[in-house]
Amino acid sequence: MSGRLAVVGLGPGDARYVTPQAQSALAGADALYGYGPYLDRVPLLAGQVRHPSDNRQEGARAAAALAHAAAGASVALVSGGDPGVFAMAAAVCEELAAGPPAWRCLDVTIVPGVTAMLAVAARIGAPLGHDFCALSLSDNLKPWELVERRLDAAAGAGFVIALYNPISRARPWQLGRAFERLRGLLPPATPVVFGRAVGRADEAVMVTTLAAADASSADMATLLIVGSRETHVIERPGLAPLVYTSRCAQGTPT
Amino acid sequence: MSGRLAVVGLGPGDARYVTPQAQSALAGADALYGYGPYLDRVPLLAGQVRHPSDNRQEGARAAAALAHAAAGASVALVSGGDPGVFAMAAAVCEELAAGPPAWRCLDVTIVPGVTAMLAVAARIGAPLGHDFCALSLSDNLKPWELVERRLDAAAGAGFVIALYNPISRARPWQLGRAFERLRGLLPPATPVVFGRAVGRADEAVMVTTLAAADASSADMATLLIVGSRETHVIERPGLAPLVYTSRCAQGTPT
Repeated sequence: MSGRLAVVGLGPGDARYVTPQAQSALAGADALYGYGPYLDRVPLLAGQVRHPSDNRQEGARAAAALAHAAAGASVALVSGGDPGVFAMAAAVCEELAAGPPAWRCLDVTIVPGVTAMLAVAARIGAPLGHDFCALSLSDNLKPWELVERRLDAAAGAGFVIALYNPISRARPWQLGRAFERLRGLLPPATPVVFGRAVGRADEAVMVTTLAAADASSADMATLLIVGSRETHVIERPGLAPLVYTSRCAQGTPT
Repeated sequence: MSGRLAVVGLGPGDARYVTPQAQSALAGADALYGYGPYLDRVPLLAGQVRHPSDNRQEGARAAAALAHAAAGASVALVSGGDPGVFAMAAAVCEELAAGPPAWRCLDVTIVPGVTAMLAVAARIGAPLGHDFCALSLSDNLKPWELVERRLDAAAGAGFVIALYNPISRARPWQLGRAFERLRGLLPPATPVVFGRAVGRADEAVMVTTLAAADASSADMATLLIVGSRETHVIERPGLAPLVYTSRCAQGTPT
């Protein structure tokens, strides 16, 4: 089978984050698949065809890209951030596992990128400087009880928590509920970072405390980082504060 | 104060992973600081001076870079992977918090990069496709009991676990102990990925099970990913297997 599929991470924002490996994978493709706004970030070369699709069609998009590659094309499927973190790489593996046996012979490459939590962390200091977890607040594909169990486990054991997919029109209450839950487990002064659209023109990054954190400050483009007991804020005259998690940890009280 | 400090992530391996933002920060520096082998990856431009330092001198290296920037230079401090994940950004914040008040007025930029777990995950499929955590097995700066508590919490709540700093000459037993601990919490068939030096000439990636995982297969350049109950392996004829974590999760038994 001569076709191939590259699942390409574009990073969080503009072209400054696109690695040379990703640029090369995009330039070598005949067909480009992806969520429309991500595809719009990719310069179209002569002979390339775009196949944009809607936001919540990950499975169908992955299957279409695999089928096109199996027909002999060189296909790039783009993802914002890193394709391996709450993005298209898992959808491709799921479709490949369930699809025709011939798909298992395809040349599939995953091209990593800078995922949102790394970009938000870099923008504000080093809040992910020590043990942390990444948790999706979406309960489309898992029960909400499991989200709460994971919040409890992570906060109880002292992990910093990066929250992906915090809120959407269809999921309006989950982030508020998560803050309530975390307020029962962490000190009120725990730093919370709201990082919106980092690396894009409408970027907005804000630091607050768990006590003051308000779910209505987040939207679909927001990534949140909730600190641990080792997360500190450095105030700077005339500059944005720095938030970091110390590399030294004590056994924390439970 | 006219000096500035950029803390720059080089990504996991060769130049394919260095973002345009990182390239530009490196090109604009007068002075380059970092662990020697990382500095060796950066092409030296006319007028630039290198200040290599040893592996375990993060605090002193960060302080030297800050002091040099405070004296008016444009300084780049390089990190492998992403500087915000078990790397130099937190060390810079710690030194800045403890250092002269003037350091708080410095122009400090963190330039994110592709951290090792993303590169290893991309190389093997999508094992970080759902909720996961990143945990350092080093007990240099935290008690080992805390590492065990975090392993228990993460595995018990169904997080995939990326293990940084799994082993070194000074820390020979920690990874074996971690495997023992995890064997008490997860099924024997749980996939485990050993990703060594991904993106470099001596790259080696191996998939095994938790039952068969052997700590002596890891060295200082290895990043491990231990799956959850939702992590699956796709065997492929003539190709390396794909490992992925399903986006769908059930409430797992505890």
